[in-house]
Amino acid sequence: MLLRTLHQPTLREAPKDAEVVSHALLVRAGFIRKAAAGIYTFLPLGLRALGKVKRVVREELERAGAQELLMPMVTPAELWQESGRWQKYGPELLRLKDRKDGDFCLGPTHEEVIVDVVRRDVKSYKQLPLNLYQIQTKFRDEIRPRAGLMRGREFLMKDAYSFDADEAGAMRAYQAMYDAYTRIFRRLGLDFRAVQADTGNIGGSLSHEFQVLASSGEDTIVSSDGSDFAANIEAVALPAPPAAVVGADAPTPRKVSTPDEKTIAEVCRTLGVAEDETIKAVAFDADGVPALAFVRGDREVNPVKVRKALGAGLVELADGAWFATKTGLSPGFLGPCGLAGVRAVIDAEVLAMPRAACGANESGFHLVDVVPVRDCAGLAVADLRMAVVGDPSPDGKGTLQVWRGIEVGHVFYLGTRYSAPMQATFLDESGREQPFVMGCYGIGISRILAAAIEQHHDDGGICWPVAMAPAEVIVLDLEKDGGERARTLYQGLLAAGVEAVLDDRDVRPGVKFADADLVGWPLQVVVGRRAAEGVVEAKVRAGGARVEVALDGLVTRVQAAIASARAGAALILPA
Amino acid sequence: MLLRTLHQPTLREAPKDAEVVSHALLVRAGFIRKAAAGIYTFLPLGLRALGKVKRVVREELERAGAQELLMPMVTPAELWQESGRWQKYGPELLRLKDRKDGDFCLGPTHEEVIVDVVRRDVKSYKQLPLNLYQIQTKFRDEIRPRAGLMRGREFLMKDAYSFDADEAGAMRAYQAMYDAYTRIFRRLGLDFRAVQADTGNIGGSLSHEFQVLASSGEDTIVSSDGSDFAANIEAVALPAPPAAVVGADAPTPRKVSTPDEKTIAEVCRTLGVAEDETIKAVAFDADGVPALAFVRGDREVNPVKVRKALGAGLVELADGAWFATKTGLSPGFLGPCGLAGVRAVIDAEVLAMPRAACGANESGFHLVDVVPVRDCAGLAVADLRMAVVGDPSPDGKGTLQVWRGIEVGHVFYLGTRYSAPMQATFLDESGREQPFVMGCYGIGISRILAAAIEQHHDDGGICWPVAMAPAEVIVLDLEKDGGERARTLYQGLLAAGVEAVLDDRDVRPGVKFADADLVGWPLQVVVGRRAAEGVVEAKVRAGGARVEVALDGLVTRVQAAIASARAGAALILPA
Repeated sequence: MLLRTLHQPTLREAPKDAEVVSHALLVRAGFIRKAAAGIYTFLPLGLRALGKVKRVVREELERAGAQELLMPMVTPAELWQESGRWQKYGPELLRLKDRKDGDFCLGPTHEEVIVDVVRRDVKSYKQLPLNLYQIQTKFRDEIRPRAGLMRGREFLMKDAYSFDADEAGAMRAYQAMYDAYTRIFRRLGLDFRAVQADTGNIGGSLSHEFQVLASSGEDTIVSSDGSDFAANIEAVALPAPPAAVVGADAPTPRKVSTPDEKTIAEVCRTLGVAEDETIKAVAFDADGVPALAFVRGDREVNPVKVRKALGAGLVELADGAWFATKTGLSPGFLGPCGLAGVRAVIDAEVLAMPRAACGANESGFHLVDVVPVRDCAGLAVADLRMAVVGDPSPDGKGTLQVWRGIEVGHVFYLGTRYSAPMQATFLDESGREQPFVMGCYGIGISRILAAAIEQHHDDGGICWPVAMAPAEVIVLDLEKDGGERARTLYQGLLAAGVEAVLDDRDVRPGVKFADADLVGWPLQVVVGRRAAEGVVEAKVRAGGARVEVALDGLVTRVQAAIASARAGAALILPA
Repeated sequence: MLLRTLHQPTLREAPKDAEVVSHALLVRAGFIRKAAAGIYTFLPLGLRALGKVKRVVREELERAGAQELLMPMVTPAELWQESGRWQKYGPELLRLKDRKDGDFCLGPTHEEVIVDVVRRDVKSYKQLPLNLYQIQTKFRDEIRPRAGLMRGREFLMKDAYSFDADEAGAMRAYQAMYDAYTRIFRRLGLDFRAVQADTGNIGGSLSHEFQVLASSGEDTIVSSDGSDFAANIEAVALPAPPAAVVGADAPTPRKVSTPDEKTIAEVCRTLGVAEDETIKAVAFDADGVPALAFVRGDREVNPVKVRKALGAGLVELADGAWFATKTGLSPGFLGPCGLAGVRAVIDAEVLAMPRAACGANESGFHLVDVVPVRDCAGLAVADLRMAVVGDPSPDGKGTLQVWRGIEVGHVFYLGTRYSAPMQATFLDESGREQPFVMGCYGIGISRILAAAIEQHHDDGGICWPVAMAPAEVIVLDLEKDGGERARTLYQGLLAAGVEAVLDDRDVRPGVKFADADLVGWPLQVVVGRRAAEGVVEAKVRAGGARVEVALDGLVTRVQAAIASARAGAALILPA
């Protein structure tokens, strides 16, 4: 590539809506341009980076025995009705009508379509196992598209689907994909963790997310300092502490007037208790029905756990007025004692509290000296609290640490979640009809670009890992006479199989340096002042190490440095 | 690829809705599966064939200096409103609303989006010329999706857009794309013609279609037997023959009663004239307004020419009752004399008729002895007739022949059709703001598969040109003991860079032969009865030539045969 003709417009300023560094840098370096909220055009360099990621993904999936196909983006409602998701999937599923008033949606994922493809042609256990994948544009109508490629609406995804004859086979497929993902993200040069996760809209009973560690990540993940345990905070099952023992001297609840206390801190002051001696109530709208969740006052409620505890489909924080109207209860004075007419669940940790203060379910009053294990006996007990640093690890080894992560991959064990309702069956060895046992496996191809930048950048711009850089080496031609030397080096690199670009633009050296840093080519070779003497400068973008090197034989040395970097080693300066 | 594990379900029966052979064969051979009307999944082999086409397209476009990017499939209405196509584009444009009630459409083509991309970043003539392309899923909501990949709704397209500073530059870009297309279709092994064409929904002033010749083609094209002239029949401008000379003895029109004559033949019999001595009237609905077109009785009217002659947007055959109500005229008795209250155009050839019979615009009556050049003088004259075999070529050299074709590519000179209304401008050398001068260039990637099969098949199945076959050679293992020999040959071919597959399935030889023919691998090598003696059979799929060859050294000979076939030569048996 010659920068003189390449359409790669760089900008000095970040776009106003850029909340994260990857968004700002992808736009500034000329990788993407916004077409609408959460919808982007990939400019030539952006597409090249995508292509590099796709190649690694394809190689590792093929190695794991998966076969590529391509399903449509516009998918018919009938299939989604069969699985039940036409009704259940929220407004993220972009539904549309064709000119004949037929119902369709833009595929946010393709479980239904692949099950239809497979059930038509796979009839016998002899055709199993089968793992089919595609790399296709997806659409999810996010309510708040944000952060550039981190949470877009239209995005590029790799989705794979495994079909097996039994659970053991499906678990092998799951493990094979888990291993392939590990290889993929390692090859791409990302620092990541595979963590246990919630299954969300997809369903199924087991899943792992692959999270790229980055302080700007939307997800919170926890890991043990004493074992391999790691999970999305949404999914970490906290062990129940031992319930309190109710002694003979246990107090009796008393009602206290708290008419003017607006905040939890004010209530605590009036009642003379600490926050962790209170019970916090959080009101939810669970599939349109009011529900309450109780946790210890210093804890946060984990809505995913509340959804599971209630067996609900969609759980959101309730509007106070709506909740009051529906239940007759006063937000601000809610408590777990003597509740009636509303679904409620209580966190197991509350039952470990020897005594507690809480709302009295009467406007202007709180209760003190409540003994939860005795006084809240009627409520369903569950694990509802959000994990925090220092919580014991669920595997009993060590305590939890907390990280921020960007989800770039997700593997799901689905079982018969889709094959059973869609009657996707095969004949087993004894001639009996059985539903396929499935798994599904996603990688956010376009999101990986953002995640990589969040992890690999500095003040000057992007520092691409070699495996996903749009090209590996840039030759900066700084010679006044418009250099034959730079061009010869560039062509030599190309001939040696190195992905090279030549900055042959008629701009100031400062612009070339700044753009090269901004775009993030892994290795820069500056053909400048001393080129006539046979000396040029090489710089590794990540870290900024630089050295003067002889032009003679440089192609071979760069080739060797790039070859080992492609295989996963750190990029080192050609000596 | 090993056929034992490849997901490639072949079928004995064609699907019921298959109207053309490519549709039947693509489904039967396991290349595609229907998801909804005009919407298909590409199974692994279908995707591989697409990939082969994409590679050739990319190589030739890059060679021509075009740069690949990727625009979104979901595009915002605002851009289409700027160009005016939001209103003008018919129901083929699938409009949709997102969850916030914003208007979007699925891109059927991307002129608006690319103009927006370019106008934001290209400000100076120094950044020109520029040619950007993508390979992206497109959606056109066809009223009658049919014939499998020939006329789908969701399909894969390559679309390129050129931006130049002036018309001369734009014409160079047009020619470069024309040449690139010629190379592409030649490399793909297709028999095609580049023909002058109408510009339809896209607009602009000059265009050529690339038509693959096939009897099942939807398009009719004409070419001269005396020159290079070729055009889509919609676009061929027929020269006007000399108008008749009105002599002193010219007759006077007479009205004749024709109350019971239902057909043109009956009218001719009653009037005692031949069909080519009559004037045919065809009623149209032109943007909701009634209009009439007149041609010589033995001719067909070309609706595209009528649309242009009327300056209308959409022209369709009129419903008879609707036309009668709107105009007060009786269909069946329409004629060009004394018309009032309706738009009408007359074909230039009619004016060459010395005398003619036609409807009298009065129910139950016709006129005879009409002298059109005298009696129809008030009507607008245009070229309206459909070309037929034997018409003189518009370039004055030779006469026309007629073919059927499948449009696989289309190049358009757009000028400022989009850049002017969308205010996409740059500063020229003298610092003046100028609109970009554009061209656009499409290739129907997925339709090419269908077109290739229409041209390359026999009773046994597909005969892929080497350049787009999903793989080049199949090794059929027919040895009873499950052959090491076949596997060794297969692996040898792979190692030699030949795209090979091995049929290692546990099925009867007849099934392997039939499937190999059906799928259409260009070269078959049968490792069978005489393999132990070192002799196998090789067969070229297209034509069926076969020969027994020595296994020893076969890899090298197959490699050589494939190498020359890739370069465009006919595939010949390894000697």
